[in-house]
Amino acid sequence: MRQKQVLLSSHQPSLMNLKVLQALMRKQITALSYEYLKDEGGHLTVVRAMSEIVGATSVLIAAEYLSNVFDGKGLMLGGVTGVPPTEMVIIGAGTVGEYAARTAIALGAQVKVFDSSVYRLRRLQNNVGSRVFTSVMQPIVLNKAVRSSDVVIGAVRATNGRSPCIISEETVSRMKPNSVLIDVSIDQGGCFETSEVTTHDKPVFRKYDVIHYCVPNIASRVARTATYALTNILTPLLVQIGECGGMNNMIWADKCIRSAIYLYQGMLTNKDIAEKFNLPSKDLDLIIVANQ
Amino acid sequence: MRQKQVLLSSHQPSLMNLKVLQALMRKQITALSYEYLKDEGGHLTVVRAMSEIVGATSVLIAAEYLSNVFDGKGLMLGGVTGVPPTEMVIIGAGTVGEYAARTAIALGAQVKVFDSSVYRLRRLQNNVGSRVFTSVMQPIVLNKAVRSSDVVIGAVRATNGRSPCIISEETVSRMKPNSVLIDVSIDQGGCFETSEVTTHDKPVFRKYDVIHYCVPNIASRVARTATYALTNILTPLLVQIGECGGMNNMIWADKCIRSAIYLYQGMLTNKDIAEKFNLPSKDLDLIIVANQ
Amino acid sequence: MRQKQVLLSSHQPSLMNLKVLQALMRKQITALSYEYLKDEGGHLTVVRAMSEIVGATSVLIAAEYLSNVFDGKGLMLGGVTGVPPTEMVIIGAGTVGEYAARTAIALGAQVKVFDSSVYRLRRLQNNVGSRVFTSVMQPIVLNKAVRSSDVVIGAVRATNGRSPCIISEETVSRMKPNSVLIDVSIDQGGCFETSEVTTHDKPVFRKYDVIHYCVPNIASRVARTATYALTNILTPLLVQIGECGGMNNMIWADKCIRSAIYLYQGMLTNKDIAEKFNLPSKDLDLIIVANQ
Amino acid sequence: MRQKQVLLSSHQPSLMNLKVLQALMRKQITALSYEYLKDEGGHLTVVRAMSEIVGATSVLIAAEYLSNVFDGKGLMLGGVTGVPPTEMVIIGAGTVGEYAARTAIALGAQVKVFDSSVYRLRRLQNNVGSRVFTSVMQPIVLNKAVRSSDVVIGAVRATNGRSPCIISEETVSRMKPNSVLIDVSIDQGGCFETSEVTTHDKPVFRKYDVIHYCVPNIASRVARTATYALTNILTPLLVQIGECGGMNNMIWADKCIRSAIYLYQGMLTNKDIAEKFNLPSKDLDLIIVANQ
Amino acid sequence: MRQKQVLLSSHQPSLMNLKVLQALMRKQITALSYEYLKDEGGHLTVVRAMSEIVGATSVLIAAEYLSNVFDGKGLMLGGVTGVPPTEMVIIGAGTVGEYAARTAIALGAQVKVFDSSVYRLRRLQNNVGSRVFTSVMQPIVLNKAVRSSDVVIGAVRATNGRSPCIISEETVSRMKPNSVLIDVSIDQGGCFETSEVTTHDKPVFRKYDVIHYCVPNIASRVARTATYALTNILTPLLVQIGECGGMNNMIWADKCIRSAIYLYQGMLTNKDIAEKFNLPSKDLDLIIVANQ
Amino acid sequence: MRQKQVLLSSHQPSLMNLKVLQALMRKQITALSYEYLKDEGGHLTVVRAMSEIVGATSVLIAAEYLSNVFDGKGLMLGGVTGVPPTEMVIIGAGTVGEYAARTAIALGAQVKVFDSSVYRLRRLQNNVGSRVFTSVMQPIVLNKAVRSSDVVIGAVRATNGRSPCIISEETVSRMKPNSVLIDVSIDQGGCFETSEVTTHDKPVFRKYDVIHYCVPNIASRVARTATYALTNILTPLLVQIGECGGMNNMIWADKCIRSAIYLYQGMLTNKDIAEKFNLPSKDLDLIIVANQ
Repeated sequence: MRQKQVLLSSHQPSLMNLKVLQALMRKQITALSYEYLKDEGGHLTVVRAMSEIVGATSVLIAAEYLSNVFDGKGLMLGGVTGVPPTEMVIIGAGTVGEYAARTAIALGAQVKVFDSSVYRLRRLQNNVGSRVFTSVMQPIVLNKAVRSSDVVIGAVRATNGRSPCIISEETVSRMKPNSVLIDVSIDQGGCFETSEVTTHDKPVFRKYDVIHYCVPNIASRVARTATYALTNILTPLLVQIGECGGMNNMIWADKCIRSAIYLYQGMLTNKDIAEKFNLPSKDLDLIIVANQ
Repeated sequence: MRQKQVLLSSHQPSLMNLKVLQALMRKQITALSYEYLKDEGGHLTVVRAMSEIVGATSVLIAAEYLSNVFDGKGLMLGGVTGVPPTEMVIIGAGTVGEYAARTAIALGAQVKVFDSSVYRLRRLQNNVGSRVFTSVMQPIVLNKAVRSSDVVIGAVRATNGRSPCIISEETVSRMKPNSVLIDVSIDQGGCFETSEVTTHDKPVFRKYDVIHYCVPNIASRVARTATYALTNILTPLLVQIGECGGMNNMIWADKCIRSAIYLYQGMLTNKDIAEKFNLPSKDLDLIIVANQ
Repeated sequence: MRQKQVLLSSHQPSLMNLKVLQALMRKQITALSYEYLKDEGGHLTVVRAMSEIVGATSVLIAAEYLSNVFDGKGLMLGGVTGVPPTEMVIIGAGTVGEYAARTAIALGAQVKVFDSSVYRLRRLQNNVGSRVFTSVMQPIVLNKAVRSSDVVIGAVRATNGRSPCIISEETVSRMKPNSVLIDVSIDQGGCFETSEVTTHDKPVFRKYDVIHYCVPNIASRVARTATYALTNILTPLLVQIGECGGMNNMIWADKCIRSAIYLYQGMLTNKDIAEKFNLPSKDLDLIIVANQ
Repeated sequence: MRQKQVLLSSHQPSLMNLKVLQALMRKQITALSYEYLKDEGGHLTVVRAMSEIVGATSVLIAAEYLSNVFDGKGLMLGGVTGVPPTEMVIIGAGTVGEYAARTAIALGAQVKVFDSSVYRLRRLQNNVGSRVFTSVMQPIVLNKAVRSSDVVIGAVRATNGRSPCIISEETVSRMKPNSVLIDVSIDQGGCFETSEVTTHDKPVFRKYDVIHYCVPNIASRVARTATYALTNILTPLLVQIGECGGMNNMIWADKCIRSAIYLYQGMLTNKDIAEKFNLPSKDLDLIIVANQ
Repeated sequence: MRQKQVLLSSHQPSLMNLKVLQALMRKQITALSYEYLKDEGGHLTVVRAMSEIVGATSVLIAAEYLSNVFDGKGLMLGGVTGVPPTEMVIIGAGTVGEYAARTAIALGAQVKVFDSSVYRLRRLQNNVGSRVFTSVMQPIVLNKAVRSSDVVIGAVRATNGRSPCIISEETVSRMKPNSVLIDVSIDQGGCFETSEVTTHDKPVFRKYDVIHYCVPNIASRVARTATYALTNILTPLLVQIGECGGMNNMIWADKCIRSAIYLYQGMLTNKDIAEKFNLPSKDLDLIIVANQ
Repeated sequence: MRQKQVLLSSHQPSLMNLKVLQALMRKQITALSYEYLKDEGGHLTVVRAMSEIVGATSVLIAAEYLSNVFDGKGLMLGGVTGVPPTEMVIIGAGTVGEYAARTAIALGAQVKVFDSSVYRLRRLQNNVGSRVFTSVMQPIVLNKAVRSSDVVIGAVRATNGRSPCIISEETVSRMKPNSVLIDVSIDQGGCFETSEVTTHDKPVFRKYDVIHYCVPNIASRVARTATYALTNILTPLLVQIGECGGMNNMIWADKCIRSAIYLYQGMLTNKDIAEKFNLPSKDLDLIIVANQ
């Protein structure tokens, strides 16, 4: 069996362009999306690494826009004795939410974490160590918390497709002037009704006098750290591929790799992409058995 | 010089009865109030020990009255994942306030500490270790916090005389039903306008549907612990008096003791008591020099 | 297929009455016991939420019965500098034991945790964070620890049926006077030989001068917190059932739900209940396949 | 004695202009510099409050200039698992150094604190809680640490006059490209040889490819927080002055106030200012005694 | 089916002697290696217990050889204020590495942990709680860290067979004089090129003036603790075997036991041992099914 | 005034030999004992630095003698999950006691600290951070704790002269076999009745099967760390003396130095030494005034 070209793709399949995909299929490429790579514990390892970075960075961004530098409130994120601390609401208790909470608590902010799942809240509570205000997403409690907060970080990941809009325009319009909204879910549509994609060149806009930060790729703000984190995962993979005697052998040997393949010698093997473009897909496991 | 009778008094001089005092004076008693005893660091050591106990105990009392046992709110002081934690306001950042804050934070409550002095807030912040919400007593911030809290502990010590009334009846009337007020300052008049002295037999009353706990001597709730703590301070003192060859020698040798003497062989040597009863007092240092 | 009536039951199947069960079966009810509901991590989510509450609350109960209020020892649970801290033994390193340990350590008590499984002790150690005295249940070590302790909390969950009696009457009889026993396992028969069920109205009795607290449903002491915790789990479930187009669809779609069903349209699908009442049961998975 | 005009000055006496001073003296002003105000513990209370803010803020500034936003290294201050953390050197273990260390450690940076005094290092170690790398200022150790670090914060306070230049141009020239220097001591001349005052409008310059941030008044970056902190100290003071019956009474009654007066009814009472402008000064205590 | 003799073996199968094995097979022994025993969470429970001990103990050994007692550097492992702390590199983020890191951090050393897997580093980070320097094994970063460190602990476990040699002789030769190397992986061949097995009688040798400690069985240094830990696991097992009605029943009933059996009535059932001695092996699950 | 020879003495005045002293006096030496040097906070700075080292090191010594290396109990100091942790009693809550407690707690031992002063216990409690078992020296509690412990560290500093014997031979004789006693107070006579001075060459002896470690100068076990710590204090001092224009100017300018002078140009200025040798002494302050 002859080895075809192999692609390590850095884009999420869900953001993929049909033309590019068809070109790849024609060239019988085997393509692997590293968003789907899993570690020994079954976690999406690249997604997790990027989420750690994004979570921590989003709090530092909030600190910047709270200060006077960009005409913010003039608040210090965190606390000084005798001054009520900055209040922050974090929506979503996944990895982004966890690292945002860790960072904000470390800086001395008063943090409230909301999620729809008690399971995720428990995991965050346990990982963060110190006691955090956690609450299931009861709309009344959530909206009240958002209105009285200085910073809101939206970090809800959609299980499939678009992330749900959680905070309505009406609630945003009643927030305190110069408050800061950071919509980490913006690449999946955002979780504030007022969110609109922005760029690193012009990262914020104001609506109802609330500062919106909606840059989709926050990790590229700390590009060197992000690259290092990525390399930590990909280098061992490349070494392994070499040691295995090529990609195909690796695909046979390693379940974790298999789950990240979306094109196998030009055949589409990922259901989500197939559905998106209305194309047929095959089951990689069956292809492999057939090829043996 | 002949040694007269010696008294170790357990009551605060400021609570003293004139008749008792005059009787003591007639009998030429040398009397020591252990509320005035100081340790090597210059702190009132008995007051501090009792304040540690009272601070921690007051939070356990709050837990009791928040539960259903005495028809309270049915809340658990502290937190369960996914349920917004109990909110507690502590007024006063002295030893009582510090130990109340430590205990409440340890249990998982959301604590806000108010004091008029940034110095005391800094000391509390530093001692408690983890980050606490501290605020100088800005009436607007304080009243808002009290109204939205589940428990308020008043622990303001008067520098001289009555402790100032800090929370007005109007604010209490706007608190949430079944909230709990614990007035640790009640022996100095209390720091809530609605406070009235209660007893261990009937420790609480309700006003505006707010549960008031105003027992002056909270430490006697845990009498054995309090006794142990007291003994820890008094036993070494008695041993020292013995080793010194009597109280008078001790008074000469040890400044810390001297500051606790309010009657020296029937002569009044404490200014506060003298002022209270409009009696003349002498300076103990001068008496001692004269007697040498 | 027509949708029959659906029941969300709040009682444990194992506590169920045969007549009620038969009535439900006749009416072709589909019944779900929320004690069997699992979260994304495979944990019994309601049981866990209640266990967190019970663990923390049991320590606050111990504090109450150690104080003078109910003629206890007059001890403060936790510590004051210079006074040896209260000693507490916790038997069982499940969720109840973990939250009891967290709370007691936070208050400053000296805690010893015993369990028969090193695995559970390790998990507790890791979750609690600070170093805890943990020991496998070596009878000599355990009995010595119980005899010298001020509080013992029994929180051993039976894997099936009655919880084993772990502390003999003989050991209880040699405990210090006015010590406090809290038997959280009382609803499964208790883990002290001297335990007998009590009620919230008369929650304790004395035997060998040891205070026994054996109320089966400790969580109802903080009813509002418990209700909130329960709602956090059930509300999303009801919403999901609605979105799915009814209970049956949900049962097909969601494995976690399936594990909590004990009656499916009147057919008994839970082995434990079936065994208890000597009734036949069917496998829900097979029923579903057959119905498709 | 008639009350003259009173001035609460916000500028440090040492930055004072001779003409202004002479005008104040002619008008027989009583002037108080709040930089000299002391709290109950004898600490310069305003200086301390501002130093807490400056210390924490300087780390957030470092985070900004490490990121890509201003063409920095592209590093995240703090750590991601698997990526060696950012290295930060803090020179000076006063309040600024302490709060910079707390914040940087909280964010996950690897911090090394240098000071010439073991006493101050011990105090920092004790206050910060977790174990920190502290070292006395051994030039070899210090210069090596600076060269391999990503961020250096200089926070050495001069006891009198200019802060000593601690890091030579030669050492700066050997730092890694795009490293960040923050010179908090710049208002006293700076502690890096390459430092030059910058402004909030153009806060940084590059020298040897090292980013220098030398804005003298860092606290004004978070103006609202700084104002709040200042108000916390000044409001109680004004209230006290009112209650005392004017400034003069306050000066007599309160030692802490007295130490902050540098002009008393036009007479210069501060030695440092007197020396600076070669003017005669009087001892305030003697003036007061004479006026009584 | 008649029950044959049963062996609980304390040696690792991989260290097994062929003659002994053949003798066991002839006698139709059923043999269980407790290195393969798993707990409820699927972890190798005995290996884990021993690894906790070895990890913590290796740091105490390092402390000994850093002191003057055995002609070491004269350093205190951990820190004193003002003295740069001891630097320690830990290679491997498994249980040994985790407990070594915990202990060293607790003592105040500056710890850097390296591992090839981000997954293991994350787990260690999360378990250890405080922020640790973790890095993927980038040769440049690792070798630089080793050369500037005072102590290196090698704790890489081979997945199968010999642990890889990670630190070359060249790197060791450039370490600081009197540094300490502890090779915990020595029983699998060691992870330093210069390692050679030593014994408790003569535990160290010097090479390039670096102290090498390469005793294979570190746990026997604290024999009583190790025995206790082992007993905690084996006693419940023996009790269970008794309750089950013998070893065979236990093997049928309990998956965890099954995974630890390497000889079943004389038949070899462990692949690794079979491969090592070039012998045929059978699948235990199939044997059991066949025997039923 | 001509400058005479200056001596920086490394021995405690109280250990001083009369002949040496007289020789120094004849030669009109100005001598400074660095045990009396104070820092800005009024603490004996060299004593404190050495005490930090001794406290931490004594726990590492205990770990060594608990292990099997020197025929000890075979225990690991600290804990493994499921094994009751090592019990340690620390007598004395000064700096040595504090650092011993910190280190032992960090390693996971169960620590009980005893002191005669509640003040010192409070300070230790506050500095150590986590909750420690502290108790005033009640003989019954103390002796019971000693008898059931694995390690006892005696660190009582005499205020003047010999440290009191606190643990009687009778109590030692009832300790568990192979327990470890470390008598840090041995240079002042020791605080165990059975203590006898040992040396680094033969550091321990056994009595009643209890291992006694009574080396007076524990800090020299980690000579390099101790030297570094000492240099941190003395180097700045020598620099200051140079900058001041000699020792005499320094003595005039700096109170901290003055307190450490025991010979001024041959005149004895230290009361304790004077009393010990029955020699007359002069007040250094008076000498200086007279010389001006």
